[in-house]
Amino acid sequence: MRVFEPGRQAEKAPTAPLHLPDGVRAPSYGRYLEDFQDGAVFVHPRGMTLNRGLCQDFATTFLEHNPLYLNAEYAQACGFETAPASPLQVLATVLSLGVQNDSEKAIAHLGYYDVHFLRPVYPGDTLRALTRVVRRQQRGAGEPGIVSVRTIGLNQRDELVLQYDRKILVPCRPADAPGSGAPQSPAGQAFPDTDAPCLSIPDAACRPVHFTGTQTYFEDFTPGQVILHANGRTVTDEHFAWTYRTGNTHPLHFDRVYSSARSGAMSGEPIVYGGLVFAWLAGLASRDTSENALWDLGYTEGYHTQPTFAGDTLYALSRVLDCAPGPEGFDAVIVTLQLVGVKNLTGRAALERHGADLFLKENDKRKLGKEKAPEKIFEIERRLLVRRRPAS
Amino acid sequence: MRVFEPGRQAEKAPTAPLHLPDGVRAPSYGRYLEDFQDGAVFVHPRGMTLNRGLCQDFATTFLEHNPLYLNAEYAQACGFETAPASPLQVLATVLSLGVQNDSEKAIAHLGYYDVHFLRPVYPGDTLRALTRVVRRQQRGAGEPGIVSVRTIGLNQRDELVLQYDRKILVPCRPADAPGSGAPQSPAGQAFPDTDAPCLSIPDAACRPVHFTGTQTYFEDFTPGQVILHANGRTVTDEHFAWTYRTGNTHPLHFDRVYSSARSGAMSGEPIVYGGLVFAWLAGLASRDTSENALWDLGYTEGYHTQPTFAGDTLYALSRVLDCAPGPEGFDAVIVTLQLVGVKNLTGRAALERHGADLFLKENDKRKLGKEKAPEKIFEIERRLLVRRRPAS
Amino acid sequence: MRVFEPGRQAEKAPTAPLHLPDGVRAPSYGRYLEDFQDGAVFVHPRGMTLNRGLCQDFATTFLEHNPLYLNAEYAQACGFETAPASPLQVLATVLSLGVQNDSEKAIAHLGYYDVHFLRPVYPGDTLRALTRVVRRQQRGAGEPGIVSVRTIGLNQRDELVLQYDRKILVPCRPADAPGSGAPQSPAGQAFPDTDAPCLSIPDAACRPVHFTGTQTYFEDFTPGQVILHANGRTVTDEHFAWTYRTGNTHPLHFDRVYSSARSGAMSGEPIVYGGLVFAWLAGLASRDTSENALWDLGYTEGYHTQPTFAGDTLYALSRVLDCAPGPEGFDAVIVTLQLVGVKNLTGRAALERHGADLFLKENDKRKLGKEKAPEKIFEIERRLLVRRRPAS
Repeated sequence: MRVFEPGRQAEKAPTAPLHLPDGVRAPSYGRYLEDFQDGAVFVHPRGMTLNRGLCQDFATTFLEHNPLYLNAEYAQACGFETAPASPLQVLATVLSLGVQNDSEKAIAHLGYYDVHFLRPVYPGDTLRALTRVVRRQQRGAGEPGIVSVRTIGLNQRDELVLQYDRKILVPCRPADAPGSGAPQSPAGQAFPDTDAPCLSIPDAACRPVHFTGTQTYFEDFTPGQVILHANGRTVTDEHFAWTYRTGNTHPLHFDRVYSSARSGAMSGEPIVYGGLVFAWLAGLASRDTSENALWDLGYTEGYHTQPTFAGDTLYALSRVLDCAPGPEGFDAVIVTLQLVGVKNLTGRAALERHGADLFLKENDKRKLGKEKAPEKIFEIERRLLVRRRPAS
Repeated sequence: MRVFEPGRQAEKAPTAPLHLPDGVRAPSYGRYLEDFQDGAVFVHPRGMTLNRGLCQDFATTFLEHNPLYLNAEYAQACGFETAPASPLQVLATVLSLGVQNDSEKAIAHLGYYDVHFLRPVYPGDTLRALTRVVRRQQRGAGEPGIVSVRTIGLNQRDELVLQYDRKILVPCRPADAPGSGAPQSPAGQAFPDTDAPCLSIPDAACRPVHFTGTQTYFEDFTPGQVILHANGRTVTDEHFAWTYRTGNTHPLHFDRVYSSARSGAMSGEPIVYGGLVFAWLAGLASRDTSENALWDLGYTEGYHTQPTFAGDTLYALSRVLDCAPGPEGFDAVIVTLQLVGVKNLTGRAALERHGADLFLKENDKRKLGKEKAPEKIFEIERRLLVRRRPAS
Repeated sequence: MRVFEPGRQAEKAPTAPLHLPDGVRAPSYGRYLEDFQDGAVFVHPRGMTLNRGLCQDFATTFLEHNPLYLNAEYAQACGFETAPASPLQVLATVLSLGVQNDSEKAIAHLGYYDVHFLRPVYPGDTLRALTRVVRRQQRGAGEPGIVSVRTIGLNQRDELVLQYDRKILVPCRPADAPGSGAPQSPAGQAFPDTDAPCLSIPDAACRPVHFTGTQTYFEDFTPGQVILHANGRTVTDEHFAWTYRTGNTHPLHFDRVYSSARSGAMSGEPIVYGGLVFAWLAGLASRDTSENALWDLGYTEGYHTQPTFAGDTLYALSRVLDCAPGPEGFDAVIVTLQLVGVKNLTGRAALERHGADLFLKENDKRKLGKEKAPEKIFEIERRLLVRRRPAS
């Protein structure tokens, strides 16, 4: 500790200099299309310690039903140190930490690809994130381009906890835009990603019963099934604060002056950060799908197909795509599911209205001669490691 | 820890089976009247660890004024390990944990009876809950019936921390409704309730002064008094999230599509979960009643007499019913109070409008030839163990 | 632990006494002008433990960008025990703890003076607060008067963590108003304030890089600069709950029945507690100003010049007033900044509209023959200890 007396603070404004307009600075964050170079690595600022209170607040607000994330005793009985952070909190946070470098100027988040949760994140762990530019696709002079990036999340022991790829729609640099205030990445920055994700999770031989339902064991899943999740969740303007609580700095999500000034379909009220929409939908599905999951392995290709606003009510549907043997040593199966989110109508009503088309990717519909589903907000595939029904 | 490589996740939806309509499942929670058998025990799913952040968030959001729940130093000076969870958080959580089995299909919560807080719940403790069906009252074919249940809350050492009885209005099972996804209770399930509640609380011989007001010692309470609590609290749609933060899964509280589709007086905006209304009212009263309480002994018969919605402003009044000697060894008195909640007018205005009738139970008014008070939302009796005024 | 059986709680209301109107009590908090005596000391009730979850929730909700308050690993690398509470949380909480004694009857908070943050507050520390009346200024019979107070915040080791002065506009006592329920201060109460604030902060010789931006080192600040902070924050009715989460009991901030019944400019919707507005504005500025600060030394004279309501969008501007050598032993400079807050237009738009006048104190404008700026909500001066740019 250092000790010092700074002295009384006298008012200085009336006599201090003021250089207008020359002294005006307007620091700006995010990057324009030209600022992305293939292979560049960005070290994201700040990082975030996921304290216990925040983890519980996320798990409950986003409707998690797997007791692994709610009940420390249950988690310990399953071999975990304590209840870990929910995977969707880890994803929402790592993506948010990258916004200042990757997407604070982006027009839209285009898709998630190859999301892997590689090990548990516990309360008290500190996450930091890095992004590597995989490819910048220009689409003509002055036109927004598509940037593909890979992002990794590391804990305080530099262990890889999350890896995913992402595509972003990014505008070109206007004629006289200032530079970025984002941290420069040191030359030769390591980027410890992997092409063969290797997961480390606790052994779970003797999980407790009676804390989960009886219809969510792997025997309950059959490819071809569609599960309508009963309850919806009306989103409130709580999402303004949650955006920053995950570390996301994009003003589109919490600044009505900014969101109202945009043009086109994204103009108007602040749009809910996609990581939160994703988490609510996974939560709505969790009582019927992941409640008895040993682990959320990750997600493949997925899209936010319509924006969500405060006041919208979200519903989720799941489709069972596949059941495959789990890794050696686990008494569990890998269940692959398609998760679809709709808004302002129930999953049952959406299924009645759209039938099998609800499970087509919206991006594929044009080539199939199909109409888009305006109530559909999200679509993704996921893999869960689901335990066997215990002997009764 | 087990380590494995799950392999890349290839997209499966375009070629996976999809069985419509035969493969559609719609898991449903809660129970119909026919699903309640006298004497049946339900082991409620999930449980909930009450972490420190959640406890503080509850105590402050719900306006607790007793420093026991806000100030760890004060709590330790009073003999507690640290600031415990507020009793109303324990009640709101245990009741919520039971919703999936007890009331997710219920039409209404009819009343609380014989609520006992048997020992402190500390941050980090994990609550689990069980319910035993006391009695199912059918009221005619196709008519909703009344189910009386007893619920207990246990901590991770299987110690009883809360016990209460509750009546619920439950609809009959529709012709082709599916079964419940709730956990089955094992045969012979223990249900460690008690008919002679025995409380264990720390000794509090030398509590600090100067952290509480000077007009809330037992000498300040005289039977016949009515205390008008000065401030109100406008409820916002924060209640949507708080419903799940206590573990409550009933969509009436957070799903506008569901709440709008209901018929009758409960149709429209989501209704605030009663456990939250109760907590806000007790909080509004706490600065004038429980600030110097050693312990909240519990509640007897009480009712939510009108629903509360986001935007409503709650006010509370307390009536002193009785003062009786405290248990041996405590320098304290048991003060019995009636707590009444009103909305969208002050306690003073409600008293001017209704006079002594404000303290009649709404259910008794018809037989007394009285009109109901439309602004009245809650009525209950409670017992507090209140300390003596310290020598100055 | 003491163990006792309180017995079943029988309903008492139907037969208990009820003394109307004689038994009605209406406890009232705060003080009228006559209740302030020069030199009196108030010991504020309750106190508040700042648990880790609450600290993180405050730091993220109020947009803190200095990783010191977000990242425990970073904080430890900077010599701190862990991530401390943000200075504005400490200020908002200590001021709130004093409301019951100082300002629960106040008409307005008039200004902040000489705010000093004397040492870090860590998660788990318990704050308590005391106020000494410096001077009561009466302005005529029946007219509200101005009360000047000094408030101090102490931690559980009785160390001074915060000191500031404040002026409050207080109404006279109505003819038959009841007494105050606030704790009496014992005679001879110590008030350990200081006239030569002495700060104790950890040494920070080797702070990590890459967690902060590259344009917020002391070399980046030049007197005369104006910094337009890019993003705004739309305030939601989250502020109702945050008022109590900091311990503030003034109903103007969370009771719509109360706020609607007021007369004049402050009538209508609940007004956002100034400590929250202050924190949001400092947060909006932090990415461009305090991100690389070793410490927030404090604030001098500052004012809330217009109220803020839910729905308003806040923007901030900073003006660099001075750069002066830091204390011996720190490789850092003291940067003095003027922080200005506006609402419902960007900082850029406010500067275009008002030019240099935006940096005049609103109270000085009349004597300068200037118009007030209706969009301006806040103005204050602050001092930051800002680190030097590390060698690259």
